[in-house]
Amino acid sequence: MLTPEEALQKILTHTPILPPETVPLEQAEGRVLAEELFAQSELPPFDNSAMDGFAVRAADVAQARQDCPVKLKILDVVRAGSLPRPALQAGQAVRIMTGAPIPQGADSVVMKESTGSTEDDWVTIFRAPRKNENIRPKGEDISAGQSLAQAGLRVRPYDVALLAAQGFKTLSVLEKPKVVILATGDELVPFTEPLAPGKIRNSNGPAIAAFLSHWNVPCRDLGIAGDDPAKLEEILREAFAFADVLLISGGVSVGDFDYTKSTLEKSGVGVIFWKAAIKPGKPIFFGIKTDEGGGKKLVFGLPGNPVSALVCLEEFVRPALEKLQGFTPKHPSYHLQGKAMNAYSKPKDRQQYLFCKAHGSENDWELEIIRPQGSAMLGMACRANALAVARIGIEQVRPGDRLPFRWIK
Amino acid sequence: MLTPEEALQKILTHTPILPPETVPLEQAEGRVLAEELFAQSELPPFDNSAMDGFAVRAADVAQARQDCPVKLKILDVVRAGSLPRPALQAGQAVRIMTGAPIPQGADSVVMKESTGSTEDDWVTIFRAPRKNENIRPKGEDISAGQSLAQAGLRVRPYDVALLAAQGFKTLSVLEKPKVVILATGDELVPFTEPLAPGKIRNSNGPAIAAFLSHWNVPCRDLGIAGDDPAKLEEILREAFAFADVLLISGGVSVGDFDYTKSTLEKSGVGVIFWKAAIKPGKPIFFGIKTDEGGGKKLVFGLPGNPVSALVCLEEFVRPALEKLQGFTPKHPSYHLQGKAMNAYSKPKDRQQYLFCKAHGSENDWELEIIRPQGSAMLGMACRANALAVARIGIEQVRPGDRLPFRWIK
Repeated sequence: MLTPEEALQKILTHTPILPPETVPLEQAEGRVLAEELFAQSELPPFDNSAMDGFAVRAADVAQARQDCPVKLKILDVVRAGSLPRPALQAGQAVRIMTGAPIPQGADSVVMKESTGSTEDDWVTIFRAPRKNENIRPKGEDISAGQSLAQAGLRVRPYDVALLAAQGFKTLSVLEKPKVVILATGDELVPFTEPLAPGKIRNSNGPAIAAFLSHWNVPCRDLGIAGDDPAKLEEILREAFAFADVLLISGGVSVGDFDYTKSTLEKSGVGVIFWKAAIKPGKPIFFGIKTDEGGGKKLVFGLPGNPVSALVCLEEFVRPALEKLQGFTPKHPSYHLQGKAMNAYSKPKDRQQYLFCKAHGSENDWELEIIRPQGSAMLGMACRANALAVARIGIEQVRPGDRLPFRWIK
Repeated sequence: MLTPEEALQKILTHTPILPPETVPLEQAEGRVLAEELFAQSELPPFDNSAMDGFAVRAADVAQARQDCPVKLKILDVVRAGSLPRPALQAGQAVRIMTGAPIPQGADSVVMKESTGSTEDDWVTIFRAPRKNENIRPKGEDISAGQSLAQAGLRVRPYDVALLAAQGFKTLSVLEKPKVVILATGDELVPFTEPLAPGKIRNSNGPAIAAFLSHWNVPCRDLGIAGDDPAKLEEILREAFAFADVLLISGGVSVGDFDYTKSTLEKSGVGVIFWKAAIKPGKPIFFGIKTDEGGGKKLVFGLPGNPVSALVCLEEFVRPALEKLQGFTPKHPSYHLQGKAMNAYSKPKDRQQYLFCKAHGSENDWELEIIRPQGSAMLGMACRANALAVARIGIEQVRPGDRLPFRWIK
């Protein structure tokens, strides 16, 4: 059986990066740029004032001091968004607001706080400014033609701001995967319907959809397919017409009525692997459906037991979804360490995911392993706030053992 | 002037927690529960098999061994989702699938792998099971009436699974804030339109919307209001009819055309504070509009300069949005430490947010402070991957100084 690392490696090897599509800038946050972007113009687009004050010729007020002010004639007022009219001549000043264009002839802005109250059309300057003081020069931040963002960048809100300032209306970004969810099993009823004897509610559909929503991946939940291979085949045909990724839960085990795997194969899905050395989640199936154009669709057969299904989703499906979108897969990530507070026996030949209550604080986490752990025990899973891993080779977790873990979110 | 901590404290003191609303379970992920939830029924809802195998009476096969198997008569087959018909009698077995109900009279399940090939209606059992072995008893995970989730819980996908399994169709969760965004300034044009001389594009609107989308908070972007107080007053009236939070950028500084603050006051907004000891972002304004019913609407006057506006958004608006939704405000969070690689002079009486390039690795981050830093320099901000803070009291950051920082996302 594959180790979880080998299984993930196989999945990522077969996972393509999706092609680009064009989206409005307003929808580009979090997406991955498909191409490098270059500045279409300078930023700022013109010399402008960093302050409210007076635009002057520095030479005119070189001698200005608190006790020896210089008087200048006010020629004009220029606000942000308006244009200065005449050029500044010797002995003149233009009242100017933050962001307003610097008038021709001016080479400095004296901030309002260093000027005296104006009488009629005159202003008194109490301080000699440096040349170019309080002027934000055209192109100071961005020169025309310079690179703004590399292909592969995951667009952040700051990038949206810069690209809006540069007038980009749309961006070419990598597509998001279209995911279809399907639960199988005659025992399932929709969770919104009354429960008949012997039946259980479909919790995998809504929970998988909730994870995808948390990861910002759109999905279509096709609900429940009963244990009827012919019907399942028909549903698969429809699903493959739409989906990049099919997440089908149930029917991948060894039972006499576990039709999922055989029906997938009959529908043209090539098996990459079946079963991984993990607990819960051992019966996980991964396959590829290649369409006529050579495009690869990913097929995950998740176990029907809900805890198993969700563990497999986070361990194996999430990294694939990240790669499809052009992200560097960062999951699964067990970057915290905690100290086990109780003992737990596990199969030596499988990696076990242990639902725990983590107490304590940074660098001193204590992990209380919830007992019993069961692959259908959602109440158990919801009492946990942390998921720890006990690696292959470990037969017995002992109190005091250090285990890697992550938070359950 | 308020320190950033004092300003945030004032904001959170005036920020209410929003009332509850009812949403479908499928939309509840990430929301905060308004009430404690109790189990409506047991989980699992009936005793069921943990394995594919044979349901037996443990006493019938107590002597079964590999070299001395016991033969039982197969009475029935029961699959997941179907009901066992007759009760099991001495000497009988029922073929059973994982998840299927345990037949009356059976008290153990022997897994398929410990049974021999059946001839006609007989099965050979090679191993004596413990009583209750491979039976998941009714209510093992959840008893009827037990608490499933506390009020205040932020719903995770695992909770969605449990609550779906329990048949909850809707949940009562705290509302999300309705946010209105408005940019002011005669210099602004929509980023999708051509740039006239003296004008700049509105980058605050789309960038603020991108941050809100990243935080899963819906918003309505009202675009640009020019520097016309009468028009602004009218827009504010419309905005307050809808919004819980108003984010208005520009016009909060000291310029002669900075109408925003006075127009807000005229529109019934009570000033809580104006200006905080930060750089960039000093002119930030925070006020409260109390409606006839006594409800409080939050008003943030953000600076017009885009870097200032976005710094204030993350520092002050995000924690308020978290509290409104019932989250424990966790932001701003500067939980990493880095070593400054270069010098930077700052105003001693203000906390400065420094855009940096962080290099290195865990526990050994080096921060290259980008120079110059400017409150309108979006290109500068986008070259950064980290935001560091230099606290009030520091006049000069020196190479080697340790600064708290966080990633820019």
